[in-house]
Amino acid sequence: MKKVAVVMGSDSDFPVMKHALEQLKAFGIPYEVRVISAHRTPEEARRFALSAWEEGFGVIIAAAGKAAHLGGFLAAYTALPVIGVPIRSSTLDGLDSLLSMVQMPKGIPVATVAVDGADNSAILAAQILALSDPVLREKLLEFKAGMAAEVARKDQNMQSEVQKI
Amino acid sequence: MKKVAVVMGSDSDFPVMKHALEQLKAFGIPYEVRVISAHRTPEEARRFALSAWEEGFGVIIAAAGKAAHLGGFLAAYTALPVIGVPIRSSTLDGLDSLLSMVQMPKGIPVATVAVDGADNSAILAAQILALSDPVLREKLLEFKAGMAAEVARKDQNMQSEVQKI
Amino acid sequence: MKKVAVVMGSDSDFPVMKHALEQLKAFGIPYEVRVISAHRTPEEARRFALSAWEEGFGVIIAAAGKAAHLGGFLAAYTALPVIGVPIRSSTLDGLDSLLSMVQMPKGIPVATVAVDGADNSAILAAQILALSDPVLREKLLEFKAGMAAEVARKDQNMQSEVQKI
Amino acid sequence: MKKVAVVMGSDSDFPVMKHALEQLKAFGIPYEVRVISAHRTPEEARRFALSAWEEGFGVIIAAAGKAAHLGGFLAAYTALPVIGVPIRSSTLDGLDSLLSMVQMPKGIPVATVAVDGADNSAILAAQILALSDPVLREKLLEFKAGMAAEVARKDQNMQSEVQKI
Amino acid sequence: MKKVAVVMGSDSDFPVMKHALEQLKAFGIPYEVRVISAHRTPEEARRFALSAWEEGFGVIIAAAGKAAHLGGFLAAYTALPVIGVPIRSSTLDGLDSLLSMVQMPKGIPVATVAVDGADNSAILAAQILALSDPVLREKLLEFKAGMAAEVARKDQNMQSEVQKI
Amino acid sequence: MKKVAVVMGSDSDFPVMKHALEQLKAFGIPYEVRVISAHRTPEEARRFALSAWEEGFGVIIAAAGKAAHLGGFLAAYTALPVIGVPIRSSTLDGLDSLLSMVQMPKGIPVATVAVDGADNSAILAAQILALSDPVLREKLLEFKAGMAAEVARKDQNMQSEVQKI
Amino acid sequence: MKKVAVVMGSDSDFPVMKHALEQLKAFGIPYEVRVISAHRTPEEARRFALSAWEEGFGVIIAAAGKAAHLGGFLAAYTALPVIGVPIRSSTLDGLDSLLSMVQMPKGIPVATVAVDGADNSAILAAQILALSDPVLREKLLEFKAGMAAEVARKDQNMQSEVQKI
Amino acid sequence: MKKVAVVMGSDSDFPVMKHALEQLKAFGIPYEVRVISAHRTPEEARRFALSAWEEGFGVIIAAAGKAAHLGGFLAAYTALPVIGVPIRSSTLDGLDSLLSMVQMPKGIPVATVAVDGADNSAILAAQILALSDPVLREKLLEFKAGMAAEVARKDQNMQSEVQKI
Repeated sequence: MKKVAVVMGSDSDFPVMKHALEQLKAFGIPYEVRVISAHRTPEEARRFALSAWEEGFGVIIAAAGKAAHLGGFLAAYTALPVIGVPIRSSTLDGLDSLLSMVQMPKGIPVATVAVDGADNSAILAAQILALSDPVLREKLLEFKAGMAAEVARKDQNMQSEVQKI
Repeated sequence: MKKVAVVMGSDSDFPVMKHALEQLKAFGIPYEVRVISAHRTPEEARRFALSAWEEGFGVIIAAAGKAAHLGGFLAAYTALPVIGVPIRSSTLDGLDSLLSMVQMPKGIPVATVAVDGADNSAILAAQILALSDPVLREKLLEFKAGMAAEVARKDQNMQSEVQKI
Repeated sequence: MKKVAVVMGSDSDFPVMKHALEQLKAFGIPYEVRVISAHRTPEEARRFALSAWEEGFGVIIAAAGKAAHLGGFLAAYTALPVIGVPIRSSTLDGLDSLLSMVQMPKGIPVATVAVDGADNSAILAAQILALSDPVLREKLLEFKAGMAAEVARKDQNMQSEVQKI
Repeated sequence: MKKVAVVMGSDSDFPVMKHALEQLKAFGIPYEVRVISAHRTPEEARRFALSAWEEGFGVIIAAAGKAAHLGGFLAAYTALPVIGVPIRSSTLDGLDSLLSMVQMPKGIPVATVAVDGADNSAILAAQILALSDPVLREKLLEFKAGMAAEVARKDQNMQSEVQKI
Repeated sequence: MKKVAVVMGSDSDFPVMKHALEQLKAFGIPYEVRVISAHRTPEEARRFALSAWEEGFGVIIAAAGKAAHLGGFLAAYTALPVIGVPIRSSTLDGLDSLLSMVQMPKGIPVATVAVDGADNSAILAAQILALSDPVLREKLLEFKAGMAAEVARKDQNMQSEVQKI
Repeated sequence: MKKVAVVMGSDSDFPVMKHALEQLKAFGIPYEVRVISAHRTPEEARRFALSAWEEGFGVIIAAAGKAAHLGGFLAAYTALPVIGVPIRSSTLDGLDSLLSMVQMPKGIPVATVAVDGADNSAILAAQILALSDPVLREKLLEFKAGMAAEVARKDQNMQSEVQKI
Repeated sequence: MKKVAVVMGSDSDFPVMKHALEQLKAFGIPYEVRVISAHRTPEEARRFALSAWEEGFGVIIAAAGKAAHLGGFLAAYTALPVIGVPIRSSTLDGLDSLLSMVQMPKGIPVATVAVDGADNSAILAAQILALSDPVLREKLLEFKAGMAAEVARKDQNMQSEVQKI
Repeated sequence: MKKVAVVMGSDSDFPVMKHALEQLKAFGIPYEVRVISAHRTPEEARRFALSAWEEGFGVIIAAAGKAAHLGGFLAAYTALPVIGVPIRSSTLDGLDSLLSMVQMPKGIPVATVAVDGADNSAILAAQILALSDPVLREKLLEFKAGMAAEVARKDQNMQSEVQKI
């Protein structure tokens, strides 16, 4: 199976992004994690993106905050699908990283998920890889069923909670 | 090859989205186009999403404006990757459709591209399908090379333009 | 009397939404509370909305955060008035849920109240039901008078507070 | 049947709001139209709101732009449900009128629809009145069916449009 | 001397607005403080505004949060200058109250100061009253000189602070 | 009577600001008009502000776009009330000039009106000057009555307009 | 003298950026113009930035729209000062390009000017180069004097314009 | 070597801006720190800016919050490059200070860095001064190499962190 690369612009993104790793692990998808900055280590970012296909990666998840160029930088150097996770930093409430990721110009898409949406980046990666992996597709369907069951359980629990009002 | 579904919430999205169709055609990717509204034809949207895998679709592109739920609606019913194109409407400059698409809650991602980013939705779909399609991958690499060549050509032309100043 | 349904996209919305329940209880309006996610339990959301009229509901209050589609989803399947409560989540300060709810396209309104405006959703539901319920109308007029009296009391208290400056 | 009042803060709102009138007419709902400004004619606004119930109104639709207080002003004086239509004016793209309407403080809701969402204000009014009017409820269900049919028709037409690409 | 009225939409605005009171007191300007809600006590708001001139008020300061109509409401009923203080509440970071106050339509201005700008509302009131009060004008000039001296003192202190780096 | 100064940061603000001049003229308030830029002619701006009181001005209206510092610049040098008119320029829809004017720090208020709110700046100036000018106060009350009458007239006209629907 | 590089992400930025070229020419500063895309021609962008110092450039002006990474990309590869000009594109009114440029993370600044602020990018470049170029410094002082004179002239002209009101 | 002036509008900006001082110190760049308010001490601000060149300053860093005019004020009086640091204050999350700084009108640029971007203001100042200072240029290249090394080290550390998942 192709691997997923989870690239963070800073190790300060790890508390958010570890949820992506946990989700990938739950799906049994092999992944590698890198701290690479488009701005501070552009040569490493370039090297990584240029060789990602040959290294066996199928999807790249890029997480970054503020003027979040990491996703676009990697996408410039690879034809692999790049998923962007805008990270909220201390000002502007995530709007800066969201717009810096999602508003990519014509020709170089970054598949952007919600601000701090680490879980969804992993699920989207799984959906992409599942196109040629029936086992993973089954896991995704189970995952969806599991979510539905969990909501149903919460719906149940709510009924007793509501009695207290 | 798996097909791409291009679903629009309204036929008024067509002038924007035809660029996606042209791009898909240029890549030789089979596609079907549908006008389905999450709000006005929810039953058809549900039916479509539930059967999309069996119908041979590999990626769904969903374009909608305002409170743009179409991508999320389809993603709720399928494990296929769903790409969202927020369409700018007459007020709020596309911010409403962008946030309605990209800020999907945990569990159900929509891979969002730029406001009115039809071209990029098609390219992203191609990147996803190319993971298991070496020919398409070659086309994407050519496409990237072509874009680079076009920019280089514009850079050339600019030099004479600049002489006039 | 017709019942009010209070539907939350997640049980994490409960701390905000219990104010709606308390308000409904104060008005003596029967209500049911549900945790149903448009994205994780779309089938249950559809079932609920399709049968809401027959189940005796007169108004649906839908509370959700981020790309808050719950109100629009339910409104797609029912002709009952749907009141939307945008819930503020950890990023973007509620702007995402507000726009996702209020900017509904032509044909399918969601009657949106303020971000985290649980109380007002209950009062609006009461105003709607009071159209055919003179007793409830009296309660609403008393409620308005009570609010005015409370402000007058606070105005009184302020006078002594101000002496300390 | 109770009447709907359509109140505009300025006659410049008429080109937008006439769509609400056409929709009310299509539903066979009696309505009256008023130009009343919360700021320029507060006494008339007060008089209107205080007597609206006695005058036979069941729902008030209030449309205004900029610091759009009209809905809140009327709601302060009546227990009738008030629907707010934020009107986009020449600056800030409707965000000012939207926030001025929807962010009503606790106690006095305004049921806000989309910026320039005149149609939806009428449909919401119909949904509210239909709670005690089975004939109107039938019309609403027909209206929903009609919208679905129209989308299906557009979906059909799109198929031939797409052949040209 | 004419009095200043400091009107708050809620007593929860007091922690912010007491800075205005302290500033007015420092200037020796007589003031009265009221808690009056445009939405919950519209009759009292109207009565207050209609009689404000006769009661000897020269300026009205109106503080409110969310859909902050208080300033506009009072201004509708009086020809006195009304100063608006938008109060930040729990969502949207004050943008809602700011736009609700400052974007008043043609004919009825509200002189808006910064979000939570209580001090400045008092200073602006003093500037207005000082037009016909030479003593107050002197106090304002002293106040300005005092501010300049305080900044100069801080500039001094900073020099030693900076040595530690 | 004290004069009003209408200062524009650029002569391109004139088409908006001439409405302020017309309004001042209608009130019979003497005014002078200046084009002074806080950034391009800071010395003239300083000279103007420092001598404004002695020159007989009672109120300064400052209109500027983009990073609209003109109001704050003048207010730094004078104790006169300064009214700010944020002018919308080609990008960001007036939000930049609005925030640059209204968010003045503690100590130096600018009485801000709506984006492009030239009329209201003049009316606010009149309200301020009317505090010590009973004739002007009468004119303001007439102006308010005139606005109410005009709305009533439009309300009348609307009734026939509505018959056509 | 060191040269200024004016780099555009697209030739569609030329109508805006030619004002920068005219300004540089007026200052007598040598410049070169390039069309280089961070996303479509990353290798050329890298090559350009890596050799910019050796090529004799002293300042780089980078203009781009949407997710405007060009400035940050170049700054990652060079220690030269990089000035960013956010270009407004068809949606979101320039907010996306502004935030993508200005919100650069720690370590890699981009000196950002106003949206579409081509003139100011040239003036800032001149200010930087003038630090070691007394002749250019003189030109800048003359330029400032010229701007002041132009405003004074407009102030004159305004006086006759105002007579017509 | 020319000095850098670090000017703060308030001593409350010091906790943010001391990072700029530390960075300047690390580069061995002489600097002076001032607390000068454009609004409370305009005369000192003017004096400072008018004499900055003669005092041996090469770059001015101006930090301010809210309606952050300090950078523009100083730039109006000097031809030196002025770097602006928008400071986030208690409301609006820094958007007000960002727009007040970056949106400077034609003729008077302020080189704006990120909200609270103190480090980058110092680095940008160093880049500017390094144009005529080969030693400083070397330090900047080392600084860039150091950042890259630090990211590489964090990338290493991340590998063991990731094992725990």
